[in-house]
Amino acid sequence: MMNRIITIGREFGSGGREIGRRLAEALHMDYFDREIITEISQRTQLAEEYVQLVVERKPHKLYPITIGRTMQPVIMPVSQTDQSIYIEQHRIIKELADKSPCVIVGRCADEILKEYKPVRIFVYADMESRIKRCQERRSQEESYTDKEWRQRIMEMDKKRSKYYEFYTGKKWGDKQNYDFCINTSCLEIKSFVPRFARLIEAEKDI
Amino acid sequence: MMNRIITIGREFGSGGREIGRRLAEALHMDYFDREIITEISQRTQLAEEYVQLVVERKPHKLYPITIGRTMQPVIMPVSQTDQSIYIEQHRIIKELADKSPCVIVGRCADEILKEYKPVRIFVYADMESRIKRCQERRSQEESYTDKEWRQRIMEMDKKRSKYYEFYTGKKWGDKQNYDFCINTSCLEIKSFVPRFARLIEAEKDI
Repeated sequence: MMNRIITIGREFGSGGREIGRRLAEALHMDYFDREIITEISQRTQLAEEYVQLVVERKPHKLYPITIGRTMQPVIMPVSQTDQSIYIEQHRIIKELADKSPCVIVGRCADEILKEYKPVRIFVYADMESRIKRCQERRSQEESYTDKEWRQRIMEMDKKRSKYYEFYTGKKWGDKQNYDFCINTSCLEIKSFVPRFARLIEAEKDI
Repeated sequence: MMNRIITIGREFGSGGREIGRRLAEALHMDYFDREIITEISQRTQLAEEYVQLVVERKPHKLYPITIGRTMQPVIMPVSQTDQSIYIEQHRIIKELADKSPCVIVGRCADEILKEYKPVRIFVYADMESRIKRCQERRSQEESYTDKEWRQRIMEMDKKRSKYYEFYTGKKWGDKQNYDFCINTSCLEIKSFVPRFARLIEAEKDI
């Protein structure tokens, strides 16, 4: 019997990670997000920063290129590395899903784990509340103006969108790809999640 | 103090009406859908069938037209009738919201009642499950093939979409316009709604 899985897609700054973390806590499930990057890094012997960079940017298809006059197909080494990172990520996500019931944030887990019939959640919010959230949550080093945050939010969403579309062939954030879409603009996440946990634990026998 | 309001937008055949009805029941709120048409009909002395027709089709802006050589602006009577139906609908929805806490399905109630800060829900499902639902719920007279239902579903959605966009200037079904979007494709509505009612009754102090 397959483990119960919850996947969370989220707009940058919408609080999707927080919902995921609190949901895992409320349902006594494991939670994975950043941990997947660390695991890939250990397995591939590549720096976490590099792995992060690769899984966040739009992947390029591997294609043979011709150099000079040789006309021989050559695979670019950098793409091979990237490809191995994707393969590793895919493998790790499956392993995690097999090990225990869990909540996985991002990384196209909804598609990778579709045969587990996960509860697929998408978290979003209006731009204003996302900027506000980013300003409140920023680390010491991240001192941006509202305008800069807006820019950053749009860039991050664009990356996620391209990444998702490349791997799944589906539109990122399109409600048809999810079971529940939650607008956090007017939501107090902390008090919302325990109630939401009770709602979905009866669904699909979580 | 304003009454608590829940508005429900829905794709045709997705079960949005059923969710609305059951939600009203669970939360002891009034429920309005078809009742609004009946009320408009009584107030305007127009047949329910005609009112239904008007509120379902894309409205035309009122504009003066010139007939023959007179160059005098003339308002077409049919448009005046239509306009009075829209005005009546707007007025009735506000009256209902003032009278008691309620669930209102469709009719751009989310926009008309925005100052009430309603909980805005959108209900959707994949085409397959909507066709299935239509086949199960059809009346004796409605004998359509799956292909015909698909056609009908797409037509109804198109009407709703145009109507909503005309009155609100916003995109129908765009998740940004709603607080929760619910995919009913794999949902057992009857058991889901009581749990969902508990979830949202704590939101915005319903």
